[in-house]
Amino acid sequence: MEFEVFSAIDLMGTFVFALSGAVAAIDRKLDVFGVFVVAFVTACGGGVIRDLCIGAFPPAGLINIDYLGVIALAGALAAFFQHLLLRLAQPTLFFDAVGLGFFAAFGVHKAYAHLPNVELAIVLGVITAVGGGVIRDVLLSRVPVVLTKEIYASAALLGAVIQLLGELQVIDQRFSPWAAIALCTLVRMLSLKYQWNLPAIKKSS
Amino acid sequence: MEFEVFSAIDLMGTFVFALSGAVAAIDRKLDVFGVFVVAFVTACGGGVIRDLCIGAFPPAGLINIDYLGVIALAGALAAFFQHLLLRLAQPTLFFDAVGLGFFAAFGVHKAYAHLPNVELAIVLGVITAVGGGVIRDVLLSRVPVVLTKEIYASAALLGAVIQLLGELQVIDQRFSPWAAIALCTLVRMLSLKYQWNLPAIKKSS
Amino acid sequence: MEFEVFSAIDLMGTFVFALSGAVAAIDRKLDVFGVFVVAFVTACGGGVIRDLCIGAFPPAGLINIDYLGVIALAGALAAFFQHLLLRLAQPTLFFDAVGLGFFAAFGVHKAYAHLPNVELAIVLGVITAVGGGVIRDVLLSRVPVVLTKEIYASAALLGAVIQLLGELQVIDQRFSPWAAIALCTLVRMLSLKYQWNLPAIKKSS
Repeated sequence: MEFEVFSAIDLMGTFVFALSGAVAAIDRKLDVFGVFVVAFVTACGGGVIRDLCIGAFPPAGLINIDYLGVIALAGALAAFFQHLLLRLAQPTLFFDAVGLGFFAAFGVHKAYAHLPNVELAIVLGVITAVGGGVIRDVLLSRVPVVLTKEIYASAALLGAVIQLLGELQVIDQRFSPWAAIALCTLVRMLSLKYQWNLPAIKKSS
Repeated sequence: MEFEVFSAIDLMGTFVFALSGAVAAIDRKLDVFGVFVVAFVTACGGGVIRDLCIGAFPPAGLINIDYLGVIALAGALAAFFQHLLLRLAQPTLFFDAVGLGFFAAFGVHKAYAHLPNVELAIVLGVITAVGGGVIRDVLLSRVPVVLTKEIYASAALLGAVIQLLGELQVIDQRFSPWAAIALCTLVRMLSLKYQWNLPAIKKSS
Repeated sequence: MEFEVFSAIDLMGTFVFALSGAVAAIDRKLDVFGVFVVAFVTACGGGVIRDLCIGAFPPAGLINIDYLGVIALAGALAAFFQHLLLRLAQPTLFFDAVGLGFFAAFGVHKAYAHLPNVELAIVLGVITAVGGGVIRDVLLSRVPVVLTKEIYASAALLGAVIQLLGELQVIDQRFSPWAAIALCTLVRMLSLKYQWNLPAIKKSS
């Protein structure tokens, strides 16, 4: 699997994740430094946790100067073009869904390459995809939105499972990341369009 | 010390810790995925932090398929039998106390076996026992209950110290985990019965 | 660079950071154990994250018995001499600024010695300096103050950059930590005196 050809998708995913972090941070009235930090951890946090868990030092997200560039760009855009972002909400959600699928697939790939364990690969694939958003919400002192509603982590889980089938050579490895990204994006966009949610568990009165 | 014979206690502790996470997550109206995640981190989070700190890759909690099973079971029970759980609060607290003592002892054992340092073993023993509950409360956006009241971490600390005496061969190693579990459980149950709390430090007005 | 001669500054920084954690924890009515834990993570948390990210096991903050001593001392002082602390707020802020500069410089030094990567050194230098305060605020369920206002992280960043210039031998290595500490302290104290803040990004209405 040549993940090198995916570097454009990687940077695009990093960019839209950083955008979501920056917008949330501005909404909480953080200062310039805080906005950059929250954008950074939203974009890179999931991958850093994955790398810490498989013992890959240093975590890739901390030494990639390209990431810093797109994250700074995302922060600046969020600061100066908020109105534009609102009008572009739909495309942003689409790119976010593509990034979600890519990060899930890449997380599975890297984890499985280091330590070929099925459970670990799935868990770390999902963490790569949604971990940054969880840290973003913890830093902003609110219950992580990914835990409360929306088909988001579930879409990431679907992408992770498809990529794992590729790692296990059940399906073609050249094909699996594309399938993971496509199906994750499809499920996520459909859930937004039709407002699907996972059920909350009813609290008995 | 043959911790293999303790695997039943390990699974039981994992189960009751997951139960406490699932109940708290349902109380906050998380969705099905969120409830499972919070149950998982409550049960496995302390051990994962311990393993990251001693460089044991991958963290044991992420590759144990048995854990996934008991955690899913705990989540389902919390969802469908909330009334039963309320009636069983007392036994649940007992098993939780036993699990607390076991995790503290096992944390000390694993940390000390990796890196024979007394301070590290005690700190990581306590983190193994209470770290999952701290992450649970952080994810649910509230001050960790273990930091505010109840003799809980203190009981874990007692268990950790007793196990450390075993590692240092001050007391018999075959005996120490049982003593750690028994005394931790005893102190915890007595503190519940008589509503012992550690003092809060009075804020001067 | 002989960081051994800096051990007095290290302990002093640990002490004032622990003090800030203990005071905040008492303010939230935590119990004795909680106050100690929050003081501990405030003082040692940043360094522990740094060590986890560079694969330095075990994290230095978990095996240094001297730290435990000064942290316990800070907790006791915060508990019993709150009035005194209020009168000493200005000196405390000064020592905190010195500790901030030292931790930033030391973080850069240790990270760069392990893995000579410029981005990693800067990021981990800043995390060493401000990471403990972020964890403190997350545990106390509030948005980290370092992300919202005050020239604090920026002063740490300045210290980190100066130390990095020393690591890269742009400036004399024997000189760089002193310059880092001095300039970080200066900027921090001036920002307090004149109430400088980084701008918050205006949320468009």
